[in-house]
Parts: sequence; C-alpha cells; structure tokens
Amino acid sequence: MFDMFIQVTRQGGRPLYLQIADQLRIKIENGELAPNSRLPASRVLAKKLGVNRITIVNAYAELETEGLVVSRVGSGTFVATAQNTSLAESEVTARWSGPLPPPRQWNAGLMLSEMMRLAHQPGVISFANGAPASEFLPVNEFRRALNDVLRRDGAAALQYEDAVGYEPLRDTIATYLQQQGTQVHNSDILITAGCQQALDMTLRLLTRGENSVLVVEDPCYLGLLELVNTRHITPAGVSLDEAGMQIERLEQIILRFRPRIIYVTPTYHNPTGVTMPLKRRRALLEIANRYGIPILEDTTYDELRYEGELLPSLKSLDTTDLVFLAGGFSKTLVPGIRIGYLVVPSYLRDRLIAIKQTADLLTSPLNQRALYVYLQSGHFAQHLKQVRTAYRERRDTMLAAMEDHFPSDARWRCPQGGMYLWVDMPPSGPTATDLYLTAINYNVAFAIGSVFSASGSFTHALRLSFVTHTPQEIEEGIRRLGKAWRELLDRHAKATTPTDYQPALHIL
Amino acid sequence: MFDMFIQVTRQGGRPLYLQIADQLRIKIENGELAPNSRLPASRVLAKKLGVNRITIVNAYAELETEGLVVSRVGSGTFVATAQNTSLAESEVTARWSGPLPPPRQWNAGLMLSEMMRLAHQPGVISFANGAPASEFLPVNEFRRALNDVLRRDGAAALQYEDAVGYEPLRDTIATYLQQQGTQVHNSDILITAGCQQALDMTLRLLTRGENSVLVVEDPCYLGLLELVNTRHITPAGVSLDEAGMQIERLEQIILRFRPRIIYVTPTYHNPTGVTMPLKRRRALLEIANRYGIPILEDTTYDELRYEGELLPSLKSLDTTDLVFLAGGFSKTLVPGIRIGYLVVPSYLRDRLIAIKQTADLLTSPLNQRALYVYLQSGHFAQHLKQVRTAYRERRDTMLAAMEDHFPSDARWRCPQGGMYLWVDMPPSGPTATDLYLTAINYNVAFAIGSVFSASGSFTHALRLSFVTHTPQEIEEGIRRLGKAWRELLDRHAKATTPTDYQPALHIL
Repeated sequence: MFDMFIQVTRQGGRPLYLQIADQLRIKIENGELAPNSRLPASRVLAKKLGVNRITIVNAYAELETEGLVVSRVGSGTFVATAQNTSLAESEVTARWSGPLPPPRQWNAGLMLSEMMRLAHQPGVISFANGAPASEFLPVNEFRRALNDVLRRDGAAALQYEDAVGYEPLRDTIATYLQQQGTQVHNSDILITAGCQQALDMTLRLLTRGENSVLVVEDPCYLGLLELVNTRHITPAGVSLDEAGMQIERLEQIILRFRPRIIYVTPTYHNPTGVTMPLKRRRALLEIANRYGIPILEDTTYDELRYEGELLPSLKSLDTTDLVFLAGGFSKTLVPGIRIGYLVVPSYLRDRLIAIKQTADLLTSPLNQRALYVYLQSGHFAQHLKQVRTAYRERRDTMLAAMEDHFPSDARWRCPQGGMYLWVDMPPSGPTATDLYLTAINYNVAFAIGSVFSASGSFTHALRLSFVTHTPQEIEEGIRRLGKAWRELLDRHAKATTPTDYQPALHIL
Repeated sequence: MFDMFIQVTRQGGRPLYLQIADQLRIKIENGELAPNSRLPASRVLAKKLGVNRITIVNAYAELETEGLVVSRVGSGTFVATAQNTSLAESEVTARWSGPLPPPRQWNAGLMLSEMMRLAHQPGVISFANGAPASEFLPVNEFRRALNDVLRRDGAAALQYEDAVGYEPLRDTIATYLQQQGTQVHNSDILITAGCQQALDMTLRLLTRGENSVLVVEDPCYLGLLELVNTRHITPAGVSLDEAGMQIERLEQIILRFRPRIIYVTPTYHNPTGVTMPLKRRRALLEIANRYGIPILEDTTYDELRYEGELLPSLKSLDTTDLVFLAGGFSKTLVPGIRIGYLVVPSYLRDRLIAIKQTADLLTSPLNQRALYVYLQSGHFAQHLKQVRTAYRERRDTMLAAMEDHFPSDARWRCPQGGMYLWVDMPPSGPTATDLYLTAINYNVAFAIGSVFSASGSFTHALRLSFVTHTPQEIEEGIRRLGKAWRELLDRHAKATTPTDYQPALHIL
C-alpha cells in the first residue's frame, strides 16, 4: 500500500499514462518506492485514478522499458533492484569476474534529469539548478580575452602543453589564494576541467572501489554523490548542525569505517548554506590529523559572501599537508570555460599530474589563457562586487516571499553566502516529492532534499537556488510554490479523512 | 654489472652529477635498471667515468630525492621498488586497507617527461612528440568561430548545459561518420574532452581495478598505457604483424585472462603506423563476438590518409553493438580546444553520460560551439587536404633521409597515413635508450620504443613523428640522428674490444 499521491490531469497535452509513469518514476528513483516492492494491480490503480486500465498497463510498460520495474507473470509488477535494472546491464555484468557493485537503491542522476526535464518546460520558474545568473556572465570581456590570446599567442594557444596547467594562470591563482590567507606555491596548483574534475582526480588517487569509504556531509553536493556512485565507493554521511559537520559523529564513522577521505564544503555549504566557524574548522583538522585521514575541501562558494567575515580555509590551517583544496570559477564567474583547480599536498603532485594526464591530457590551453587574461584585466573584483550585491538582494527577496507565502511550520535559516536556501517541511506531512509534483502544475520547480543525501534522508526538505532569477521572478515563483504547498496540505488533510474521498485527487 | 653506456661531457653547462643522474634516471624508468638492482659503488663509478667521487654521490643523492633509488647504510645504493619509491607514498598507502597495487616496473609518465625535458632544450630537433604541425592550426578561423558563437549565443555559450554535448555538434559528427560509412545516430554520440577522455570513460565503465585485464596492441598508444597504469588495470599485450593485432595470439590471451575490453587502433596505428586490412577487421570482430568482449576502437588518425583506400571502421562492421568508437580532432584539426567524441552502444548510453557528468560535468560549451561553427563553415575538408599534402611530403622526406643516413641494417615500413615511422634497430646492438642519449648530444630527439610497450619490449625500436617539422628540419634532424647512430655503433664496436678502452666513453 502506498502512502503517497498520484495525480492526473486531462488539461495539458501530456498523455495520462506518461503522467502516471512520470510520478512513479520519481518515487522509484528517490527511494519512496523501495526495490522489490509491488506496484498496485493495474485494475486497482485504474479504478482509483478514474482512468482506463490500459492507461496503467501502458504506464507500467513505459517504466519497464526504462528498466525501473519488472513484471513477473502471475504475480504482478515490482520495482526493479540493481540486479534486474535492465537486461543490457545484467548482460554486461555477467561478463565480469569481479564482485558486483552493491545494489544501488538510489539513482540521483536519473532523478535529477527527470526533475530537470520537468523544470525546463516552458513557463516554469525553476529554483532547482545551481547555475549562476546568465545576465551577469561577462560575455564581452571573455570575447575580448579570447581575441587577445589568439592574437598574442597564435597557434601556441591551440597546441598541446603541460598537463599541470598554464603557468601564468597558476601564478595568478596562487597569488589570489595567498591574498585570502591560504599560503600555496604555484607548483602545488593543478589546473582542472572545473572543480568537479578536481574532486574526481582526488578520489581517483585516494580510493579503490567498493572497499573505500568516503565521509560526506549529509546532505552533500549532488555531483560528489554521483561521483561516488559511478566509482562504486561507499559514502558515509555525517549529519550537520548549524556549525556544519558534527565532529563526534565524524569520529564514530572514522572508528567504524576507516574512511579514505573526508569531503567537506566548510563555507556556504551546498545544499544547506551552513558555514563552519573557525573553532569547528580547527576541531575537524585535529581529528583528521589524529587519524591521518586526508580532507578534500570544496571552496566552490567561498567568494559568494554577503555578510560576515572571510573565514580561513581548512588548507590555510593545515600544518601537516593533509588537505586537498578544490576550487573553481563556475559559480563565481563563468561555468562554460570549464576551469577549476586543485591545490595538492606537494608529495602527491606528480601522481596527480599523471592522473590528470590520463583523464584528458590537459585542460584547454585556449580557455586557460582567456581566463588568465580576464583575471589580469582586473575585472574580476568588480564582477564579484556586482554579483554579490545582486545575489544578496535575491536572497533577501526570496526570504521575504517565503515569510509571506510558506506555511508557518516550514523552517529555514538565512545563509551568509552561496546560492541556496534549505527549507525543512514538517516531518508528519507530505513529502518534498509530493510538493514537487504539485508545484510543477503551478509552473514552479525546486530540488528535492533527498537527492542530496547518501542515506536517502531529507525526504521532507527542499533546496531553493536564489541566484538564477530576477527578484520579480523570485517573488512570483515563491508565491506559486506557497500556493501549491497550501493546496497539497488541503488535499492531505482531506485525504486523511476517508469520507471526503475525491476521485480527481488520489492517494494510493 | 651494467651492460650499458654512461657518457659525460664537460662542454655545455649541465653539471656532471646531473648528466649522470639524467642517464641513470632514464635507465631506471625504462626498466633497463631493474628494481632492487644495486648501483655501482660511488668510487668505482667515479673512477670509470673519470670524475670526482663526490660527483657520483651527488648524482645518487639527486635520484634518492626523486625516490628512484634508496641507499642502505653499509650495503649500497639500490634501484627503488614500488614499495619504497617514496616515503610519502608509503605513508599514504599504509593507511589503505585494500590490496596494494602491484609494483610498477615501468613508469612511462616519468620517462616521457624526462624525454620531453631533454627534447625541449633549445636547438633540439625533436621527433618525439605527437603534436600536429603548428603552422597549419586554423588560428584565424577559430578566432572567427569564437566571435560568431559569442555574438550569436551570448551567455548561453558560457552556461552549464547537458553533459551529453551540444546537439548540433553531435548531429554534424553523426553526419560526418555516416558519410564515411559508419551508421550512427546522434543520440549515440557523446562529446568528450578529447579522445583521451573517451578512452578513460570507457575503461571506467567496463573495468574494475586490478582484477580487470585489458587487451592492448604491443606496442600501443602511450596515453592508454598510462591510463591503465593509474587505473591499476592489467594490460595484456598482443603483438602485431604487418596486418595489425595477431588474432591467434588474441584468442590465447582471451582464453587465459578473460579480458574486459580489447583496445585497438586499426588505422595508422600509433606507434607503428600499421593498418589492419578488411579481412583482419572481420576476424577481430568475429572473435570479439564469439567471446562477448567489447572493443574500444581508436580512430584518432583515420583522417590522415596519404595513400590507399578508406577502410571501414570496426564500428561500421559491428552488428552486435559491441564496439565503442573513440575519435577526436586533436591530430587532424586542433588539439587545444579539447573536443573528442565517443560512439557508444545504445544500451549503455545513460551510464556513460553519468560517467561523463561525474568526471567534469560537461565539455566547454563555448569550445563545442566554436568547433560546430568551424565544421559548418566547410573549411575542414580544405584543411584536411592541406595537412595531408604537407604530411605526406614530410613522410617522404623523412623516408628518403633515413635511406641516406641510417645504418643499412635498420628496418622500417612506409605507413599509408598517420604521423609516425617505426624503426627497428638490430637486436644485437645498442638499445634505443643508448641511441637517445647519444642523439641528444647531436640535438635530435625521438621516442624510445619501449615506452609504448606494456611488456617493456621494443628496447631496440624508435618512433619518429614526421609531421611536426618542416622538410628542411626533417632532413637535418635525420642527418644528425644518423651521425649519432654511427658514433654509437663505433663506440659499441670499440667498447666490445677491451683493449680499446677510452676514458671519455664508458660502459659500466
């Protein structure tokens, strides 16, 4: 028996069977429908939803084609497990002699792409993704920088060069980090294809498949969880409080699982917006040192500061060369040139360069040079000032609108920087997935909390990005979301009263 | 006792101890000096080379700093093994609970970087690297394309987008492949950061660390061997004849090791230049099918055809969706924009997109669009015609010069395309490393055959790239190389006559 909503509408063009498949898919992918659980018989579900039985059969067939469910003759339709996700996959794994990966109960990649598909429909105001606002991307400045580079360097900007990265750019990044209090030498900086590759390279160096445990914050950056998933590493989530990763829980995890790395975003954490104060930073380093466990520090959002003081990076406090610092320019400047960097412990530099070289030989020397020319031009400080002002205004607009439109028992904190607001829904009510599916009808989207969780927790939380839209769009989007939320609560309240059953609005 | 040369010169600025360290380093890295073998006592070597003992002590200290040798008090200096390569590495691995990687007897990355360092000294004509000729890189055309893209698409060219790649570019590549007889749908094409990433992604999907065996040609593309090395996969080399990978040997390897993938470059193979005829292609596919082993086909050089007909790709002959085709534009057009592609079996598409996403989110949308605009402009056909004409002339110039200057017992074949000439030295004479070290004094460099071998074979072979230099430089470089070779043979002949021992020229 399901304790969740499925809702269909005859307005809009999407066929009924696909509407049903869409909603079941999301519930399967975020774990609300567990592997091996049985879907309702088609005639039962058809009757409940007031649709033809063939509609349900078609919806199930759609999901079966996608490998999400399997039908067993005579016993019904079941949510697939990792072993039977798809025929093709099992054909491939059958050839493998090594141990099979553990069943994946959670597929954030598919979940995310489904959320993104819905969020990109025309007219939808989406707070789901983590892109910077397009209107501030320095298009003309980069066009000038690219022209300068190609006029100045000619073919050299389009040839092969060292995997470690363009030296003047590494110098510039080193100087920049030094100005912020992180003493690094340019030789310890490797240029990467965005911050994501810096994370991937570090995991490639320090982990070895299923036996490797990696500590993550719970919740955690989705791209890291996906990486852990495709690399078949085991993530161990440590919960957060208002000061970030909880150190006592971390120690328990360390003692129990002997992890290879601790991955942490101490400043303006994605998705919660939490910042780790200095004292907690020191405590984290102390414990990592005591057990000799490297830290992978993600500084993606450090520059997006709206209030409060600049806190020292973990790397700047690191006295034993145990911290890998990953950073980039995608959130603060421009995602599309794909430049990030990794500050590495000196003694591992050569091995990381070899890993970079085998991953993709080198990052585009053209893009590296263009970024260098841009940074040299002095526009970056001005750009940061502009986006900080705009993003702070957007954050405040969103907070005010939430105050006006969200139910009074929703909970959130005001982040001092970054891009996200994290909202907790009352645990006794409908889930964030239910809200998502309702909100889509109101043309507004967000990210469901559970996709950010290694443990599948946070089913009653949502992440709202406040930077992508204008203040006017933000107000309108939050108004719609508030309306959807109230509608959902009304339905929920009515649905729990069996006498008040409505054919158009269903609980299974 | 060493059976190889060490040679020092007091001309030129490089200190004697570094000259000695340079030569020992290369011998260690290419396996001529095996792990655990003892280096001569410093006073013995000093006497033989006619240098001060402190020079040898300094040379050994230099190598020890690099982790290549270890000194044990009272017993001497030994070539390091993987276990004692460096203190730092053993500290890290000590934390790991999983099995240690097997000792790496061979480190092509370091070897290559040392070769490259020597090759890049001023005045050196280097045939060592695989870069296209800089003078043909379409700098202005790409500058125009970048400007067009940023004017047309603005911020969209600098934002995040789908990991699978820019759709118009995928359409263009699909059409291009179709014109060459490979029927692919654009949805089966993934854009990658150069061909190297396409190889990496395929290995990431199909292999799992030490237990995984991958079939390679022996010799093989160095970047694949390095990838195998950093991924801790076991390569199994299959030797080549004039038609490429030998099918009978392949079957023996399959039966013995149950490999996960067969990696093969059927057209203008790197490093040998060999092309696999149609009959062998069919035989290869037949055997891969019989045992159900995926093939990773590298088509990097396919477009650099100087004679002969266009042969069908393995992918075009593949009826069971077992072939992954990896291609790119680095050798044929421009390396620095870092765009390649992977044509994947449809049923694995989503998993490969997830892998791409976790590796680096997406390839620069700016560079993808610039390549698309360039390809649409129709300049590519013209560019290919230009480089084919130039490269064929350079190949012929090199072949003629080799005929004039190389010893009569050297052996080579004329490749019908690609970038490389592969030269076999008589197995009874000095090694390619010996020739390399002699040639560097004549300001000419090449790639040593053994770096391309998973088994460390081909110590008496060299790879010469014929595309990078002008015909005049090629003639001069081959003349120098011939001179170095004759000098080496003279020394070798004299040195094998003990009465003719010369203090300035040493065999240890």
